[in-house]
Amino acid sequence: MNKAIILAGGQGKRMKADIPKPLFKVLGEPMLEWVITACSAAGINDICVVKGFRGEMIDEYLGGRCRTVLQAERLGTGHAVMQAVPFLQEDDSDNTLVLCGDAPFIDPVTIEEALVIHKQQGNAVTVITAELDDPKGYGRVIRTASGISGIVEHKDASEEQRLIREVNSGAYWFRTADLIELLGKITNDNSQNEYYLTDTVSIAIAEGKNAGAYKSENPEIILGANDRKDLLALNDIARRAVIEKHLVNGVEFLCTDGVIIERSVEIGVGTQILPGTILRRGTKVGSNCVIGPNTVVECSMIGDNVTLNTVQVYDSSVESDVKVGPYVHIRPGSTIKSGAKIGDFVEIKNSTIGEKTAVAHLAYLGDSDIGRKVNIGCGTVTVNYDGVAKSRCVIGDNCFIGCNTNLIAPIKLGKAVYTAAGTTVTRDVPDYALAIERGQLKVNEGYTLRKLKKQK
Amino acid sequence: MNKAIILAGGQGKRMKADIPKPLFKVLGEPMLEWVITACSAAGINDICVVKGFRGEMIDEYLGGRCRTVLQAERLGTGHAVMQAVPFLQEDDSDNTLVLCGDAPFIDPVTIEEALVIHKQQGNAVTVITAELDDPKGYGRVIRTASGISGIVEHKDASEEQRLIREVNSGAYWFRTADLIELLGKITNDNSQNEYYLTDTVSIAIAEGKNAGAYKSENPEIILGANDRKDLLALNDIARRAVIEKHLVNGVEFLCTDGVIIERSVEIGVGTQILPGTILRRGTKVGSNCVIGPNTVVECSMIGDNVTLNTVQVYDSSVESDVKVGPYVHIRPGSTIKSGAKIGDFVEIKNSTIGEKTAVAHLAYLGDSDIGRKVNIGCGTVTVNYDGVAKSRCVIGDNCFIGCNTNLIAPIKLGKAVYTAAGTTVTRDVPDYALAIERGQLKVNEGYTLRKLKKQK
Amino acid sequence: MNKAIILAGGQGKRMKADIPKPLFKVLGEPMLEWVITACSAAGINDICVVKGFRGEMIDEYLGGRCRTVLQAERLGTGHAVMQAVPFLQEDDSDNTLVLCGDAPFIDPVTIEEALVIHKQQGNAVTVITAELDDPKGYGRVIRTASGISGIVEHKDASEEQRLIREVNSGAYWFRTADLIELLGKITNDNSQNEYYLTDTVSIAIAEGKNAGAYKSENPEIILGANDRKDLLALNDIARRAVIEKHLVNGVEFLCTDGVIIERSVEIGVGTQILPGTILRRGTKVGSNCVIGPNTVVECSMIGDNVTLNTVQVYDSSVESDVKVGPYVHIRPGSTIKSGAKIGDFVEIKNSTIGEKTAVAHLAYLGDSDIGRKVNIGCGTVTVNYDGVAKSRCVIGDNCFIGCNTNLIAPIKLGKAVYTAAGTTVTRDVPDYALAIERGQLKVNEGYTLRKLKKQK
Repeated sequence: MNKAIILAGGQGKRMKADIPKPLFKVLGEPMLEWVITACSAAGINDICVVKGFRGEMIDEYLGGRCRTVLQAERLGTGHAVMQAVPFLQEDDSDNTLVLCGDAPFIDPVTIEEALVIHKQQGNAVTVITAELDDPKGYGRVIRTASGISGIVEHKDASEEQRLIREVNSGAYWFRTADLIELLGKITNDNSQNEYYLTDTVSIAIAEGKNAGAYKSENPEIILGANDRKDLLALNDIARRAVIEKHLVNGVEFLCTDGVIIERSVEIGVGTQILPGTILRRGTKVGSNCVIGPNTVVECSMIGDNVTLNTVQVYDSSVESDVKVGPYVHIRPGSTIKSGAKIGDFVEIKNSTIGEKTAVAHLAYLGDSDIGRKVNIGCGTVTVNYDGVAKSRCVIGDNCFIGCNTNLIAPIKLGKAVYTAAGTTVTRDVPDYALAIERGQLKVNEGYTLRKLKKQK
Repeated sequence: MNKAIILAGGQGKRMKADIPKPLFKVLGEPMLEWVITACSAAGINDICVVKGFRGEMIDEYLGGRCRTVLQAERLGTGHAVMQAVPFLQEDDSDNTLVLCGDAPFIDPVTIEEALVIHKQQGNAVTVITAELDDPKGYGRVIRTASGISGIVEHKDASEEQRLIREVNSGAYWFRTADLIELLGKITNDNSQNEYYLTDTVSIAIAEGKNAGAYKSENPEIILGANDRKDLLALNDIARRAVIEKHLVNGVEFLCTDGVIIERSVEIGVGTQILPGTILRRGTKVGSNCVIGPNTVVECSMIGDNVTLNTVQVYDSSVESDVKVGPYVHIRPGSTIKSGAKIGDFVEIKNSTIGEKTAVAHLAYLGDSDIGRKVNIGCGTVTVNYDGVAKSRCVIGDNCFIGCNTNLIAPIKLGKAVYTAAGTTVTRDVPDYALAIERGQLKVNEGYTLRKLKKQK
Repeated sequence: MNKAIILAGGQGKRMKADIPKPLFKVLGEPMLEWVITACSAAGINDICVVKGFRGEMIDEYLGGRCRTVLQAERLGTGHAVMQAVPFLQEDDSDNTLVLCGDAPFIDPVTIEEALVIHKQQGNAVTVITAELDDPKGYGRVIRTASGISGIVEHKDASEEQRLIREVNSGAYWFRTADLIELLGKITNDNSQNEYYLTDTVSIAIAEGKNAGAYKSENPEIILGANDRKDLLALNDIARRAVIEKHLVNGVEFLCTDGVIIERSVEIGVGTQILPGTILRRGTKVGSNCVIGPNTVVECSMIGDNVTLNTVQVYDSSVESDVKVGPYVHIRPGSTIKSGAKIGDFVEIKNSTIGEKTAVAHLAYLGDSDIGRKVNIGCGTVTVNYDGVAKSRCVIGDNCFIGCNTNLIAPIKLGKAVYTAAGTTVTRDVPDYALAIERGQLKVNEGYTLRKLKKQK
């Protein structure tokens, strides 16, 4: 079976944060996740992650999805891979991909095509390379008629070698058995006293094994992040690539400023995304919607023909033909049914809003089941918490809830119930009834004149 | 009379939407509208639009403003223009401009200056051209001492011709009578079996007529949109151009991210536009305002010295010296008079807010006429809908509306009326009166202690 | 003592506003302030600002921090400096820096290193220069073996001189005594009839004094603003530089669109800044916060682990471990204590919110002191204004304020007081009591059916 080893032991000191570098996020996902995803997409699921700095955080993030081994001391990339030798020995019949956990843009096409070349050429090791306009600082790949003769680090390269623009990406395919053998032969006999994985290439060649290189079409595979500036650059590349994918799919953008769409988000044809819109993981948006400006949707399903104008939606479902906004907060566990209208300054939490129901302004509906064609008056509050427990409000179809109504949960209003403005409803109300709590209105004539006189 | 034919038959398959390509929008207006506007600005108002794919949508959009003809089958640009021959024949005494309906940046200066050259040179046809840094893919214009000898498509061009950077924009001036004649002579004798309008140039030359070229200063006339990515690029160009116009006029921008200002918007000197601000058609903003961040204004008049901080305003008028925001929604039909202050979480709909009136927080004023120097307490709601009809609230000058007051419309409060907090006002209140609905406040001592004991 | 003269007399006609050009702002501070700050940072505090156009605005802005002199007529840069001769004569023993008040990016390193060179070389005048890729339009610096032989304006430069990329920044160090002498010798014998400060260089050389040049590493010192477009460009440069500083410090940005952070703002390591966030002067943000999207913070202290999601905060303090938003307005004079939670559509003004207190939704707390672990129900309003005066509400620890409660200030609620939903609390409530104002709820059965019948 083909396998992968992902090197994830680095610290990223210049990030100035106490977490392993591969856990820094690009478009909402750790760089390590991008690398794992690329492996999976290329059909490689037998993965060993080499952890090091704060390795427990890697384990916690992975939650058992991949095997991990600890590189207790950081003694170089070769040493990191050595920690995975037991993993390799379990099945050394095929090939092993070695990847950097902080180079998120490795892609499945590159992985697959590099393997094809690796096998065709019968290589012990195939270096995955890319061609850069400015190769400064990178290890150059020295090609020969039959393969490569080695990788020369920038600082060791001759003038002529420095003109080479094909560089080592840090990703490799190895024949697994050869990798085990080669790892046994690399030494730390160098100025840094580190074991370098790149040494396997020269050792393989010296031993008469084939070493080759596969040049990826995608130079972004080379990119990693050593500091927050690099990380911002990676985020920017990923952002633009995701937006471009949606453009090709027929999604409309007038201006992409402040638009952040995570990789897994799906958007239907003809939907328009306005500036400042953030669509996070687990979100699916239908067709012909208008989303934004300044809308955040996380882990939610949005139907077709939906308007979300300056809205935040979390872990909820908004069905088709719903208009929401501006300034609306839909909290987890909510379903807004088809044809509903949610106006300004409304919070919905853990509630179902029925079809064609209107919640036009300044209301809080929490832990509630609201029927069809209900009109929720301005200032309506579901009093779902008594300081101890939360309870539900159930409101039947066609109800008309007057403005500034308090509904003290648990409570059930039947069908077509009216509540008078300013009423606090403290018990269930049967179908077709009016609930009213209203004191006598007193009009105190001349009050203002007397008040003004007193002030003087 | 000079005329124009606008070719608007294309589908734009790569847009992935079922509408004619010229109806895709740049800065809020269909590309077709940009082309029509350029014609009008150049004094050409006798326009025939050639529709094709979903032509009924073109008619619906135009609403009778221009004549249209249908190109039932799409057999090339020459064939499209042929459909307009009856339009040409009505008056063939002058010249006809042919434009692409999906190249929105044609400008009146180019149109006018091309016509001057066209007439000066006595041309049968004058190709409008532009010079591109990268002319790849475009038809090259072959100039001669006296005019042009033809247009060579990129694929047919010699090495030497490919060095030419002057390209055909797809816009032409024709002598109308010559156009009619030339259209009769083009054939579909080519690999695509299409009638190409460019063939008119070589036919004219072959017949001994003059053909010339006018090179526009504005290379953007060449730009069109075949997919959503192109459309985003056009929007971006237009956005920047509009912002630059306002910068020159003395409008201040700290950062233009997310700022979208449609073409027709006017802004006074010294006004500052903050990021995320969207100003749509029909909007006029005065001087020395601060607009934004994240403010949307559509079809509204904004006076001088107005602050709109995170506000949405639709089809309304905000007079001078008004402060609005943050988080305010002004819906259609509203007038906020001079010196008023609208604070956070307020919705105003179809209402007039008088001079120096304050609506500081969390209120809904709908279908209301509010006088001068009124203070609207927090939580005030105009109960303008009883489930059947909408009615108005009228509040006199100098009123003081207590917090969480419900005003049941239709209702009229006189001058300097006070309402007590929490009152539901159900009938008219005369000048200077206090309206109060207030139950007895009971204080139940030790309640919490008993409650806690019970919980245990 | 070393001194500085800052030339701040210009009008900036193309700005189209009636204020002195050096008062136009870059990242929220007048350009003049940037120049003064650079002087101070370089240890130069004896500063004379030469004002001209609307000089009173310069005085008003400075508020007596620097001396000013008026250049009543604008007769050139030399003439401007002449106005400061009395200032120079007070102490002519050391050196004087002359700076442009509208070139904000002069930096203290440049000032200090130029002075070192100036003194080492024993120069009468040392021109501060920079090297530009495109020097067109700028005065070229002609270097000699021992110093410089002069500055040649672009229009007077030979072909060969135009190849020189080192240009005059308009900033100079003078030996003060020499400056006084040289100013006495420049004339307005030129086509513009102006006194040019650059003439001091050639006069010094002609008199056998040393003239030198110091080339700054920072070409941005050359940049000024003549129109709003230039000003936007300066803002953009400053914005990016500030963001880059924070990136290096370990602050995370996913996308910097619409992010504006003023120079003086401090941000802790690991804090994430989302798009559309504006952090203004006097703001300090702690570590591991999430700020944004679309959040404005002005003159406020934000602790660690704070979330501000779509919030505006002015002149307030938010302690650690507080979650605020979305759609919250915190107005001046507020303190949100540690562990509090402020939810959607809440305004806090001039109030203290105690530790672990929750204000979850749709509430206004003004002029209030709220204790620890209080729960403020939805729709709660502190009625702090009676039309004449503002008064305070005091709410003890562990209170539970029911929804849509009105608290009529001045009022004091003791510890663990409950208020029933919909209650208007008009007097103080002792510890552990329940305050309730509640009318009888009437249920009018069949109301809706009768109403429907009537409608028919």
